[in-house]
Amino acid sequence: MKLNKNYENLVENYLFAEIGTRVEKFISENPDKNVIKMGIGDVTRPIVQPVVDAMKDACDELAQGKSFRGYGPYRGYDFIINAIVNYYTKFGVKLLSTEVFVSEGAKSDVSNITDIFSDDNTICIADPVYPVYLDSNIMLGRKIIYVKGDSSFKALPASLLEKADIIYLCSPNNPTGAVYTYAELAEWVEYAVANDCVIIYDAAYEAFIKEEGYPHSIYEIAGAEKCAIEICSFSKTAGFTGVRCSYTIIPEDLVDSNGKSLNKMWLRRQTTKFNGVSYVIQRGACAVFSDEGMKAIMADINYYMNNAKELAEFFDRKGIYYTGGKNSPYIWLKCPDNMGSWEFFDKLLIEANVVGTPGVGFGSCGEGYLRLTAFNTLENTYEAIARMDKIL
Amino acid sequence: MKLNKNYENLVENYLFAEIGTRVEKFISENPDKNVIKMGIGDVTRPIVQPVVDAMKDACDELAQGKSFRGYGPYRGYDFIINAIVNYYTKFGVKLLSTEVFVSEGAKSDVSNITDIFSDDNTICIADPVYPVYLDSNIMLGRKIIYVKGDSSFKALPASLLEKADIIYLCSPNNPTGAVYTYAELAEWVEYAVANDCVIIYDAAYEAFIKEEGYPHSIYEIAGAEKCAIEICSFSKTAGFTGVRCSYTIIPEDLVDSNGKSLNKMWLRRQTTKFNGVSYVIQRGACAVFSDEGMKAIMADINYYMNNAKELAEFFDRKGIYYTGGKNSPYIWLKCPDNMGSWEFFDKLLIEANVVGTPGVGFGSCGEGYLRLTAFNTLENTYEAIARMDKIL
Repeated sequence: MKLNKNYENLVENYLFAEIGTRVEKFISENPDKNVIKMGIGDVTRPIVQPVVDAMKDACDELAQGKSFRGYGPYRGYDFIINAIVNYYTKFGVKLLSTEVFVSEGAKSDVSNITDIFSDDNTICIADPVYPVYLDSNIMLGRKIIYVKGDSSFKALPASLLEKADIIYLCSPNNPTGAVYTYAELAEWVEYAVANDCVIIYDAAYEAFIKEEGYPHSIYEIAGAEKCAIEICSFSKTAGFTGVRCSYTIIPEDLVDSNGKSLNKMWLRRQTTKFNGVSYVIQRGACAVFSDEGMKAIMADINYYMNNAKELAEFFDRKGIYYTGGKNSPYIWLKCPDNMGSWEFFDKLLIEANVVGTPGVGFGSCGEGYLRLTAFNTLENTYEAIARMDKIL
Repeated sequence: MKLNKNYENLVENYLFAEIGTRVEKFISENPDKNVIKMGIGDVTRPIVQPVVDAMKDACDELAQGKSFRGYGPYRGYDFIINAIVNYYTKFGVKLLSTEVFVSEGAKSDVSNITDIFSDDNTICIADPVYPVYLDSNIMLGRKIIYVKGDSSFKALPASLLEKADIIYLCSPNNPTGAVYTYAELAEWVEYAVANDCVIIYDAAYEAFIKEEGYPHSIYEIAGAEKCAIEICSFSKTAGFTGVRCSYTIIPEDLVDSNGKSLNKMWLRRQTTKFNGVSYVIQRGACAVFSDEGMKAIMADINYYMNNAKELAEFFDRKGIYYTGGKNSPYIWLKCPDNMGSWEFFDKLLIEANVVGTPGVGFGSCGEGYLRLTAFNTLENTYEAIARMDKIL
């Protein structure tokens, strides 16, 4: 057999593996130190009770012959699709139920969506970026171009050096915490419509937007229904990193120049290569949208965002430049004294016993930056700030 | 953007969609008829209590800060991987824990595994066949060759008309219920090793093997660890069609002619494009392997297999040729009076109000055959037999 040679072009050491190695080494050499992990973007607060109750009820349903459910609908159960459609009306976005596909993870969808496109597309990725956009396209040997952000780490089409076909955008951004305004996102939609592009819009952090003036969904921008696929996740919204549920929206109006429907192609892809999300998990995810569920998850998001605020105020006091922290759980900060990302990572780990994520791990434009996350306890956040205060 | 043109080569009407359309039409025109569905291979018995209890306990764990779990290990949690490794010792197969990958569905794995291979492989698929093997390769534009089975619908390498690189095997077979003996499977392993092939071995129905003399795992055959990937599912074993869990085994010894490890490539694929199975579901799947869980799921399998036995004995009495039914929940029968698959499907639906699956839907060699499943109640099975008795 012949293996996929494109895998040879992947960078061997995965960012978080290298972080893990360095942290483990430090801990084994310094077992008395209490290391505070603000690196990987994993949530820390437990699943809210309305979601847990819904999942347990679903388990009981499956235990009874009368309420047992086998294979579910390919797009997801009506109950959750209707809840998602209803959620989007909050943003003034009208979705059809056939436009929503429930899946087990945004990471899967954002990488599997490559399946419906030809290999001769030019892929546009912002630098720095969530590595999955890049790696899933390297695996296919596709041509990749990068677009740099401005000083606030927002990439705009004016910075594109050549024509793109497929554009990955993430707002609020992972890793930089930058959030597009309506006007900025409209620039991308205008570019995509004019140039027959599709935008893969990663909205995994939309629930963290607290201020007015920032779109939660790309479909708040006129014309986006003709050029954009939106992927959203319960991972950060409701702490589902270990529970696994997400959804992808492909508008019926999104067609190629021959009028071919991307929605129908994705449906064909999913019916062939996927068998739906666990009934138990769909019930849990649906409970996120209940009044009680929404109230509970918003309390958790506010808890994290308070951590972000504390971090942001600390770096303000120190005069250290950063993006994010306001409508995002990430703080993307400039390493002091022109240190490199890994140099500052090591300094923080060794001198403050705080773990961040080196910005260079997200792309060459991330060199000299470091990402901290708000996914922690308030106590740990205070402690991390106190320790960093001593060394910065 | 440019879409994947290979999708145009897919057959538009999906088999089960066409069945659904015909059945819905019949029911709407005959609302008084009690239609018995023995078509789609979905389980009917509820999830066993040990599994339900384990899932509910896991939900409670996620509700507490101390026992909360976020992202899990990429290959799956140790508790379930160890249980799978231990399960395989029953077949005399020794696996390493690094050889097991837990996933949310065999359908996903059997189609996503294409990712790690180059497009210039020749794909060998048996006819008739589970459509996913075929469609997932059509989507990639790969060269596909077919291998016909003998009269008992077992395809063997002697029937190969040209050299294959990647071979899909399924035993007990979906749709024909045929099961390879040790000697027959050894022919495939020998062929694969001699010709630098990889076998994708779908063992989703292994738990239905009741008789001695048939391998449950391809790794019971010497040399298979050098040429085979095995994919197994909890869907039929434990009624998980709506719960979603499966596992894939890639031996460390499975390398290409340059010594490149397929296990490492799949790990890279999964770490990039997948984020693991829900903790709740992994706990449930693990409980299948407990003494109580195994006893309970075996009782369900025996229940289904008794249905299969009743169906088999009925066709024996009628002198109708079939395969399966003994070590498989499927009965694959020759349509009487040389009827075509859809003709006999319609006759069964209209005259006996029984729904089967037309064999031709699984490939041209399935023409003139029909698949019935044992996934039903004993009462419905008796009723279906009584109705078929009147018209056959």
